[in-house]
Amino acid sequence: MGHTLLPKRLALPVFASDPLSSVTYATQEILVILTLGGLVYLHYTPWVAAAVVLLLITVVASYRQLVRAYPTGGGDFEVANTNLGPSAGLVVASALLIDYVLTVAVSVSAGVDNLISAVPELHDYRVPMALGIVVLLAAMNLRGIKESGTAFAIPTYLFLVGMGALIVWGLGRTAFGDDPVAESAEYDVHAEMADLSTVALILLVLRAFASGCTALTGVEAIANGVPAFRKPKAKNAAITLAIMGTLSITMFTGITGLAVIADVHYTEDPCTLEGFDCSQPQPTVISQLAEAVFGGGSIPFYYIQGAAALILILAANTAFNGFPLLGSILAQYRYAPRQLHTRGDRLVFSNGIILLAVFAGLLIVAFDASVTRLIQLYIVGVFTAFTFGQTGMVRHWNRLLSAGPDPAERRSILRSRAINATGATLTGVVLVVVLITKFTHGAWLVVAMMPLLFLIMRGIRRHYDTVTDELAVEDWPAESLLPSRVHAVVLVSRLHKPTVRAIAYARAARPDILEAITVDVDGDATSALLDEWDRHDIPVPLRVLDSPYREIARPVVEYVRAIRRASPRDVVTVYVPEYVVGRWWERLLHNQSVFWLKGRLLFTPGVMVTSVPWQLRSAVGGGQSGKPRQAPGDVRRGEIRRGGGSS
Amino acid sequence: MGHTLLPKRLALPVFASDPLSSVTYATQEILVILTLGGLVYLHYTPWVAAAVVLLLITVVASYRQLVRAYPTGGGDFEVANTNLGPSAGLVVASALLIDYVLTVAVSVSAGVDNLISAVPELHDYRVPMALGIVVLLAAMNLRGIKESGTAFAIPTYLFLVGMGALIVWGLGRTAFGDDPVAESAEYDVHAEMADLSTVALILLVLRAFASGCTALTGVEAIANGVPAFRKPKAKNAAITLAIMGTLSITMFTGITGLAVIADVHYTEDPCTLEGFDCSQPQPTVISQLAEAVFGGGSIPFYYIQGAAALILILAANTAFNGFPLLGSILAQYRYAPRQLHTRGDRLVFSNGIILLAVFAGLLIVAFDASVTRLIQLYIVGVFTAFTFGQTGMVRHWNRLLSAGPDPAERRSILRSRAINATGATLTGVVLVVVLITKFTHGAWLVVAMMPLLFLIMRGIRRHYDTVTDELAVEDWPAESLLPSRVHAVVLVSRLHKPTVRAIAYARAARPDILEAITVDVDGDATSALLDEWDRHDIPVPLRVLDSPYREIARPVVEYVRAIRRASPRDVVTVYVPEYVVGRWWERLLHNQSVFWLKGRLLFTPGVMVTSVPWQLRSAVGGGQSGKPRQAPGDVRRGEIRRGGGSS
Repeated sequence: MGHTLLPKRLALPVFASDPLSSVTYATQEILVILTLGGLVYLHYTPWVAAAVVLLLITVVASYRQLVRAYPTGGGDFEVANTNLGPSAGLVVASALLIDYVLTVAVSVSAGVDNLISAVPELHDYRVPMALGIVVLLAAMNLRGIKESGTAFAIPTYLFLVGMGALIVWGLGRTAFGDDPVAESAEYDVHAEMADLSTVALILLVLRAFASGCTALTGVEAIANGVPAFRKPKAKNAAITLAIMGTLSITMFTGITGLAVIADVHYTEDPCTLEGFDCSQPQPTVISQLAEAVFGGGSIPFYYIQGAAALILILAANTAFNGFPLLGSILAQYRYAPRQLHTRGDRLVFSNGIILLAVFAGLLIVAFDASVTRLIQLYIVGVFTAFTFGQTGMVRHWNRLLSAGPDPAERRSILRSRAINATGATLTGVVLVVVLITKFTHGAWLVVAMMPLLFLIMRGIRRHYDTVTDELAVEDWPAESLLPSRVHAVVLVSRLHKPTVRAIAYARAARPDILEAITVDVDGDATSALLDEWDRHDIPVPLRVLDSPYREIARPVVEYVRAIRRASPRDVVTVYVPEYVVGRWWERLLHNQSVFWLKGRLLFTPGVMVTSVPWQLRSAVGGGQSGKPRQAPGDVRRGEIRRGGGSS
Repeated sequence: MGHTLLPKRLALPVFASDPLSSVTYATQEILVILTLGGLVYLHYTPWVAAAVVLLLITVVASYRQLVRAYPTGGGDFEVANTNLGPSAGLVVASALLIDYVLTVAVSVSAGVDNLISAVPELHDYRVPMALGIVVLLAAMNLRGIKESGTAFAIPTYLFLVGMGALIVWGLGRTAFGDDPVAESAEYDVHAEMADLSTVALILLVLRAFASGCTALTGVEAIANGVPAFRKPKAKNAAITLAIMGTLSITMFTGITGLAVIADVHYTEDPCTLEGFDCSQPQPTVISQLAEAVFGGGSIPFYYIQGAAALILILAANTAFNGFPLLGSILAQYRYAPRQLHTRGDRLVFSNGIILLAVFAGLLIVAFDASVTRLIQLYIVGVFTAFTFGQTGMVRHWNRLLSAGPDPAERRSILRSRAINATGATLTGVVLVVVLITKFTHGAWLVVAMMPLLFLIMRGIRRHYDTVTDELAVEDWPAESLLPSRVHAVVLVSRLHKPTVRAIAYARAARPDILEAITVDVDGDATSALLDEWDRHDIPVPLRVLDSPYREIARPVVEYVRAIRRASPRDVVTVYVPEYVVGRWWERLLHNQSVFWLKGRLLFTPGVMVTSVPWQLRSAVGGGQSGKPRQAPGDVRRGEIRRGGGSS
């Protein structure tokens, strides 16, 4: 088939850039929330981080079960749909669609933050830069970028090397007593909430935990990509999940540890940092750590900023790939326009990419490209998908158990069920925590959007179901009866080659009745046509239709209806001569009336509309683009083609 | 035919709102320029006005010749094209297209000025108000407003009454020694250019004259509208031209006289008016006169402001009507997309209206809705059209003379030629004056745009000519030869009612070969289809086409090409079952692949594409909108329909 499947060393970067990149901002977002209460609560950081790590382990373990049970790449959507019913599936689908928009907005904003940390002069261009990157990604995906595992691999491995060096060097220095100290360690914080009550403190810690859970975003990507793995697909995917989880945990723990050691202070509003000139951009936590460990302006410092920005932009790009992938699955279930399922229609792919870019751009503008503010919206969708997916898995194992498996299998199922039950419980709890702590901070927007998407998709499905019912063949022999006669009508405007060809083709089809018709919009032109018709002695009678309002479509449609009224068992074939031009601007100059006319005729019962094209020289070779182009997301569907184009 | 032609009392307002409305700002623009040199040069005002009146008389007289000689409504474009050649015609067409844009921008800005003069609180909203009016006019014309002579008549006659009252009352007061005095009479002017040299003075006066020539804009409208007049068309149009000219001259003279009597001071930059609080809007000359004559805040004052604003907006609306009218004429000459000629395609009309609104909006924003600055661009196009049109008329009379007419006729022709020669000379001189005095003030923009439009229109014409040559029937009997056989192919995706009908229709057409084909994009669906095909025992063989990349169009196109390669003298008919839905959003969900496929097949030689529609319930009654809607500009083409809709 000419497809290449991904080995693990390429699958990891293809699917893991999104989850791995989130470690660049997860620690920072924990600090931001805790610091709202002042520096005194920063000592909760390790505990919050530990809870995030625990959750990450659980979720990775849960997904390892999921990819083994559902290796078709349907992910949480398929699991929820199959085990919890179509409504649950649609909830997951709505959540994931919103998630893709937020992945773009958050990742691009975080990438821009890291660029600004390296080059503070860019501070004033935060929003335009973020929008520029979104537009660039959209344009690349609209053009159909040549994806390859290698293109993903380089930035991801560059990032892993950078993070590894940062953590090893930083902890090494600490081990030898030369603790790195962040620039912001000396700034005191003017707390926005002081003297917290116990309840308020618990809420603050929970909110910090909820923000830290961004480290988990993107873990589900591998579950959607199983078909792209080499065989044994499910096993390789599970191993890749484990590697990805280990890397995430290591980096997240290392960065959080270093942030505690270096005493990084980071606030949402930099003006609450006492001693910091808040007209300047606040460097990201990653950037502060790189500066503390390697020194500001050093090559490793810039390397780490660049690698972080790159992997974040790559993570945003995965959303542009994942969006059509999800669309294709939803189309298979008829929740989305059917043409998303096949690759025939680039237009729909393009619309999806444009929609994604527009919504991400709106969010970036509305939230000033602030990662801290966007994060509040982000996690609702992710954890909705997690919770439904894992709950679905529990049902799945229950069903297998009720089938009465043998004891060894039974043990394995019980173990899997326990893992997924833990996952479902924990992610469900986090979802509740996220909803409670973040609802007023922006999550309400997501909560409002999800039902809207749910209803739209259910509406599409209902429409398709109605159409299917209406189109079903009920009464076989009666419906396949042939019409008694064919009455052919050739539409003539002038007597040129396309018309001559249309007449010849119509005659070749030997209809029972054949006539030519012309619409009289210009008396002189019509007389000239009649003269020419006689002169050439054309063996088909030409009928002239009046058009008092110089319209073309209406008289034709009315004439066709009159034929049908006179002989309802006949079928009318309207032959429309068309000439085909090659260039887009030429198309603007031709055939517009014919286009409308054909559209109108399609609404007329008992009619066939036959286009007889005549290809002009500019059209030769047009309309048939060379090789099929690659569509965004192909690499993740396992549909990337072997290089060289010799397939 | 159901058309109503216009009596003169309605034709006057329909065609004359544009030229009549320009008297609201013509005097003001003369004052603005003269005042650049200080108050000392204001005494040139009557002389400049006299020159404008002389020119207006000449131009009206010239156009009276033109409408008699060319009663078809082609106006300057037709005259220049016929007598001076296609290039001259295209120059006129470019000039007129630009003129329409400027008519909208200038008239709306002037209308807003008068509204602000009445309600100074609106001062800060000058540009948004102007844009709002443009959007409103565009929306009304896009919807297809119900034009009627009466709708034009009311504001025009209201305006004429107001101006008449103003002039009579103002001059009456003067006659009785109670001269009206403008509020601005007491303000001294800080001259921007002082102590002018003779050359500079001449240039200043010429510039003032050039600005005053705005009083002539729109005179050509009647020449484009002759077909809408009652019989004798040409004579009635000529009489209407004379009435319009008389009214224009009377109003222009009266307003200019009153402005001199009331000693109105008006400057481009109100801050050069010493004593005037230039944070306030500067009232228009009309407004100052109304205040001086009737008193500020009086009912006649507000009446005059309202009537002036109304007729100016009406003048802008005429551009929205005239634009498609010109487009229709250009389309007849194949300089514009052909579909502009018939009314079949509303889309193109709509595009024209949107383009007009967008360009007018851009000008309004770029020039801050300032009439004085926009005027600099306005007159180039108008006088280009005048000059070419009148020169063409001179050629026309020369041609008639060379045919050797009888003595009486000869005298009449000589007289007409003298009038048009005077017109051509004077407007030519004014064009040169305008170009010299206004080039650096903005006219360069128009001078740059005209060649661009010229080249676009010539390119369109060349394209149509090439296509006509290519399509011309050369070798009659050979080209009308019938194909040897018809090979019919029914495209099948599922076995539903549309497919059954397509097969039945295809069988009824009795092709030489008939087969069904399906593209295998989903193995399971294809097997199910094959089973069902067998079960129903369909009397047409079903062939399955492979599609490695899950495309639909490519395998079908390739299969059709293979058939043609095997038997080049056969014609292939592809039957495409389609179901037709009624609502726009439903269309998004269906037939997208079919749409692309049909497009691709049209590029394939030797193919007919036959759509076999199946109308779903939601499509019944769709696609056929009730009565034909009225198009913008119909009233000016003499195509307005009788009221009541009983035609």
